[in-house]
Amino acid sequence: MQVITAAIAGASGYAGAEIARLLLGHPEVEIGALTASGNAGTRLGDLAPHLQPLADRVLEPTTAEVLADHDVVFLALPHGHSAAIAQQLPDEVVIVDCGADFRLDDEQDWDDYYDTPFAGTWPYGMPELVKADGTKHRGDLAGARRIAVPGCYPTAASLALAPGLAAGVVEPDDVVIVAASGTSGAGRSTKAHLIGSEVMGAMSPYGVGGVHRHTPEIERNLARAAGRAARVSFTPTLAPMPRGILATTTARAAAGATAETVRAAWEQAYADEPFVHLLPQGQWPHTGSVVGSNLVHVQVALDERSGRVVAVAAEDNLTKGTAGAAVQSMNLALGLPETTGLPTTGVAP
Amino acid sequence: MQVITAAIAGASGYAGAEIARLLLGHPEVEIGALTASGNAGTRLGDLAPHLQPLADRVLEPTTAEVLADHDVVFLALPHGHSAAIAQQLPDEVVIVDCGADFRLDDEQDWDDYYDTPFAGTWPYGMPELVKADGTKHRGDLAGARRIAVPGCYPTAASLALAPGLAAGVVEPDDVVIVAASGTSGAGRSTKAHLIGSEVMGAMSPYGVGGVHRHTPEIERNLARAAGRAARVSFTPTLAPMPRGILATTTARAAAGATAETVRAAWEQAYADEPFVHLLPQGQWPHTGSVVGSNLVHVQVALDERSGRVVAVAAEDNLTKGTAGAAVQSMNLALGLPETTGLPTTGVAP
Amino acid sequence: MQVITAAIAGASGYAGAEIARLLLGHPEVEIGALTASGNAGTRLGDLAPHLQPLADRVLEPTTAEVLADHDVVFLALPHGHSAAIAQQLPDEVVIVDCGADFRLDDEQDWDDYYDTPFAGTWPYGMPELVKADGTKHRGDLAGARRIAVPGCYPTAASLALAPGLAAGVVEPDDVVIVAASGTSGAGRSTKAHLIGSEVMGAMSPYGVGGVHRHTPEIERNLARAAGRAARVSFTPTLAPMPRGILATTTARAAAGATAETVRAAWEQAYADEPFVHLLPQGQWPHTGSVVGSNLVHVQVALDERSGRVVAVAAEDNLTKGTAGAAVQSMNLALGLPETTGLPTTGVAP
Amino acid sequence: MQVITAAIAGASGYAGAEIARLLLGHPEVEIGALTASGNAGTRLGDLAPHLQPLADRVLEPTTAEVLADHDVVFLALPHGHSAAIAQQLPDEVVIVDCGADFRLDDEQDWDDYYDTPFAGTWPYGMPELVKADGTKHRGDLAGARRIAVPGCYPTAASLALAPGLAAGVVEPDDVVIVAASGTSGAGRSTKAHLIGSEVMGAMSPYGVGGVHRHTPEIERNLARAAGRAARVSFTPTLAPMPRGILATTTARAAAGATAETVRAAWEQAYADEPFVHLLPQGQWPHTGSVVGSNLVHVQVALDERSGRVVAVAAEDNLTKGTAGAAVQSMNLALGLPETTGLPTTGVAP
Repeated sequence: MQVITAAIAGASGYAGAEIARLLLGHPEVEIGALTASGNAGTRLGDLAPHLQPLADRVLEPTTAEVLADHDVVFLALPHGHSAAIAQQLPDEVVIVDCGADFRLDDEQDWDDYYDTPFAGTWPYGMPELVKADGTKHRGDLAGARRIAVPGCYPTAASLALAPGLAAGVVEPDDVVIVAASGTSGAGRSTKAHLIGSEVMGAMSPYGVGGVHRHTPEIERNLARAAGRAARVSFTPTLAPMPRGILATTTARAAAGATAETVRAAWEQAYADEPFVHLLPQGQWPHTGSVVGSNLVHVQVALDERSGRVVAVAAEDNLTKGTAGAAVQSMNLALGLPETTGLPTTGVAP
Repeated sequence: MQVITAAIAGASGYAGAEIARLLLGHPEVEIGALTASGNAGTRLGDLAPHLQPLADRVLEPTTAEVLADHDVVFLALPHGHSAAIAQQLPDEVVIVDCGADFRLDDEQDWDDYYDTPFAGTWPYGMPELVKADGTKHRGDLAGARRIAVPGCYPTAASLALAPGLAAGVVEPDDVVIVAASGTSGAGRSTKAHLIGSEVMGAMSPYGVGGVHRHTPEIERNLARAAGRAARVSFTPTLAPMPRGILATTTARAAAGATAETVRAAWEQAYADEPFVHLLPQGQWPHTGSVVGSNLVHVQVALDERSGRVVAVAAEDNLTKGTAGAAVQSMNLALGLPETTGLPTTGVAP
Repeated sequence: MQVITAAIAGASGYAGAEIARLLLGHPEVEIGALTASGNAGTRLGDLAPHLQPLADRVLEPTTAEVLADHDVVFLALPHGHSAAIAQQLPDEVVIVDCGADFRLDDEQDWDDYYDTPFAGTWPYGMPELVKADGTKHRGDLAGARRIAVPGCYPTAASLALAPGLAAGVVEPDDVVIVAASGTSGAGRSTKAHLIGSEVMGAMSPYGVGGVHRHTPEIERNLARAAGRAARVSFTPTLAPMPRGILATTTARAAAGATAETVRAAWEQAYADEPFVHLLPQGQWPHTGSVVGSNLVHVQVALDERSGRVVAVAAEDNLTKGTAGAAVQSMNLALGLPETTGLPTTGVAP
Repeated sequence: MQVITAAIAGASGYAGAEIARLLLGHPEVEIGALTASGNAGTRLGDLAPHLQPLADRVLEPTTAEVLADHDVVFLALPHGHSAAIAQQLPDEVVIVDCGADFRLDDEQDWDDYYDTPFAGTWPYGMPELVKADGTKHRGDLAGARRIAVPGCYPTAASLALAPGLAAGVVEPDDVVIVAASGTSGAGRSTKAHLIGSEVMGAMSPYGVGGVHRHTPEIERNLARAAGRAARVSFTPTLAPMPRGILATTTARAAAGATAETVRAAWEQAYADEPFVHLLPQGQWPHTGSVVGSNLVHVQVALDERSGRVVAVAAEDNLTKGTAGAAVQSMNLALGLPETTGLPTTGVAP
């Protein structure tokens, strides 16, 4: 096969650097332009010394001129910046956008949560997410030339709970999700509450009360799985670790659901998935076990006392939660084996 | 006032050592016997070098002979061990039990979650917990000679949500609680999943699906606040920090509840509390800010999209979650000012 | 005794907030003005929610007008800002400067390491530091009205090694010190390399090769202990913890030194110290055991294979390393018992 | 090329699991038997869920019968257990021992530090280590059938300092090394001082005063580089992170050494190395940047004030410090390209 060339816009941020890390291990891809805005002109090794093979590369400015003339362009830009660049790139370039810009279907949702104009909707890069008709989103990605990479929280939360919704063993109308994220989810931002002294040894919530921007994306995903509207209380929390999301999701058990029907729903959904694994009964996900990998570990239990099902997922927010999904989607779009170049082992302990 | 003498049974464990730390700063108490089981005969400084003023004390065996002849005896023993010792101590000794043995009202709940015989119910050492009639548990503690110190999770979870239940602005029948705890909550146990290599950089749930032993205690507390049965889905998670609990609680908003009536319920409950503080609007609890203190920081929000109220509390599991509540209860039992010797500043960052 | 009033300049920084934390527990001091520069006008609780009793205080601007009219003024300002303020304060005010401005004796050393004019030398707030004549610095502080609080690294490094130098069992001319510090040592600075994602799970050195500003202060302290010039290779490293310094110091053993004479030197120096403790043989300092306290834990060993003595000290960089030393020095200056209001227990685990 | 089959003895320990992680990414190797002692019969996924592709493998007992009939056998056993197994394996099997058993040349050194009989000396698996004659250890490994993998501390310490010794710009007779290691260096041991509550937020030294078993290995390596005896003061410290070693090494500058000759020595040694990189001037190693990789980042400075050279290396103790060196050595032994299957990017942040 001919080599695929890929550019990364925003390569000095955490998401962009993670894409670079994965592409360095991808046998079919050659890394082309690496761009940045404020960091343009800087040696990559000064900002991301872990990317040793690219250390002497110098970041270029993020312009359509620099990005065009690649087979694939990964956009790892702040929200609201993707549409302008995308419009300037040729139709045949595969654009994989890690921002939120093209994730939502509903313009009203976008307007409720973002302050830039609604840019549209692209095929959604979560191959394993089941729909109410039993198919998965994988099918939307073959041959796609524009892909919206899911948010990190929506990935963990949706993959945790969707099988039960699609199988009808849990109800979508009163879902509660509390998720803990490592600090890299906030990017490389130097805000006061993100410095090490503040985050080490401490947990705190943020975006409480339905105000986090990932809320409508999660509701949309769960609605697609359930085939009807989903209502979600979502509380994200910041955990003292660099990487990882643990999403604890609960939903009311449907009438007649049993421990067996619940487990069967999840088993069926993920039996053949290469990256999403239902753990053996009694073993619960541990974010440390999936760090650096494209894996999602899932477990589920029926709590008969409370009448709720609890489903938990662990992922690496930068890998499966962002860059891994981006590369996986690219593989599907280009007709490569879906798993090409994607790590299936965590870096633990 | 005459000096109060206090013994600590289980002084080499984390809870017992924390009681010692607090009593060293208590102006009315003199620390008497410090006992242990397996560690009896060991110099305390070898096990708890942070207790510098007690470093040369040698741990005595945990027997009624050693413990009697103190004004107060703190029991920081494994669950199921308190009743046997308590029976052998004189009636006039104030016994403050940090174990679960005397926390529950309902023998059936005990039998469902523990494997030792039900030992009875003692006054419950959570002074700030509101009851449905508007009074607080504080009143049960004056003059008490037997006190059951609450569990660490029930403290954070109950103080987070009870004001809304007592005021009728949230419903008790479908409460969801997800809490993150520091590792000291598991005690000094040398289990494989608790070694540093496993817990650092990782989050994981445990006791999922209503099986954690703190579940019936939380439900009982919330029922006392609501004046009717409470149904709780409780998921504890292990966070990579030594101390701290962040409890995220949600309950369906009652019909007619507004952001104003919700906030008013919490303001009223905690306006005059010395240790439990409703933070200013928009500021969310951060466990790091209460480490080492007897404080609980609380915040609440109404999520109109999901129809749920989210209330969050942060505490130090060893201080307010265990040893601080023990000392606070002792103060009330002995007629001392409730705040005597208890830290109201966290050790941050 | 009459109440002592104290103002803190720079109260929203980590050092200033730690002084406030300690003074809240000081029975003779009333906290007066709390000042800041950029944060003036902000509620303290928004910046330092751990200081619950002061949460509703509003920060005032750092001016001589605001600071004067207190018995004691603590300066917790960036280096180079203390002299200007100090000159405007009355002579009778006790000024305790936590900056570097008045720490060094030698103008050349100052000029080599700092870019502001040399401001002079004040009595040095390290009471336990031995001098070559066997006396300690404690004696310089009684009645002092101007005090220079030592740097955090020099405190740990000097207290670790000075006893051996004063006793002549180690040589001062080829000292090697490698110290690990928690991130709060860098203050509340929002630099890119200090965000949580970068510091958690990682160690890195900085200021290598004699360029760290604490180098001449350490050399001066060791020279005072030895009675002759000291030459030090000092390498600071950043450790993934909020608080704590572990200083590993080594020096060549003097001719004839034995394990016994080495241990005797340290025992003699610290036998009666309330805050600096030589641990029992075989027990090594652990920074976690002194967090939040004014303690320094020290241990020493003679390595006969290499001909070097290794002395290690653990402290909390914000407490004994800064704010605790400030309060301890204030106590001595005012004739209060030296230990008043200073914690002698760590917050562990 | 024909597939190479490899067995791992001790696959449930951290070192063994890391070898498995690397071999899963090795294009020429097929993983055969995975063995354990106490954990034999257990599903690997229960102990090492991060090794997803091997999750359903069951650990076999560690016997020669199970291990024989592979092309390569990796031994990741406690010290003192390798010789007995090795003797029972055929000569043509490549045995790569991660234990200390065959690392030392000098029986006296072995007897001073270990309590089992001296087993002999195997070719030393540190390809990049320079010798006094300018050659490297790489040459000893081609075609080797028995390889001793270096200790984790000796790898970082030796690669940090050896170039200067070989070039004669530093002196070997008074080397001081202080190294910080992540907790995985202690293995999966459930000792009280290794539980998360004790290690998080704290630094502590251990094995101080020349008593750590890696001391003679480091001295031997430095002596090989210098061409004459080396004397080392080595202090290891435990850092609050799962992986990573930061070794700070200092040695007296040789007469006439300048910043230029010092830098040139390191540049020359590592200019063509695929895994060991001298960082650009001014950039210092950061363990987080090499986590999960086979990289070593090195930096050096001449401190003219103290007359010492400071050289610092960062590595991942489990990867380059153990398993990566094992696989790299295997590649050399089998005539494969040295870098095959070895990660050259860190998992950061």
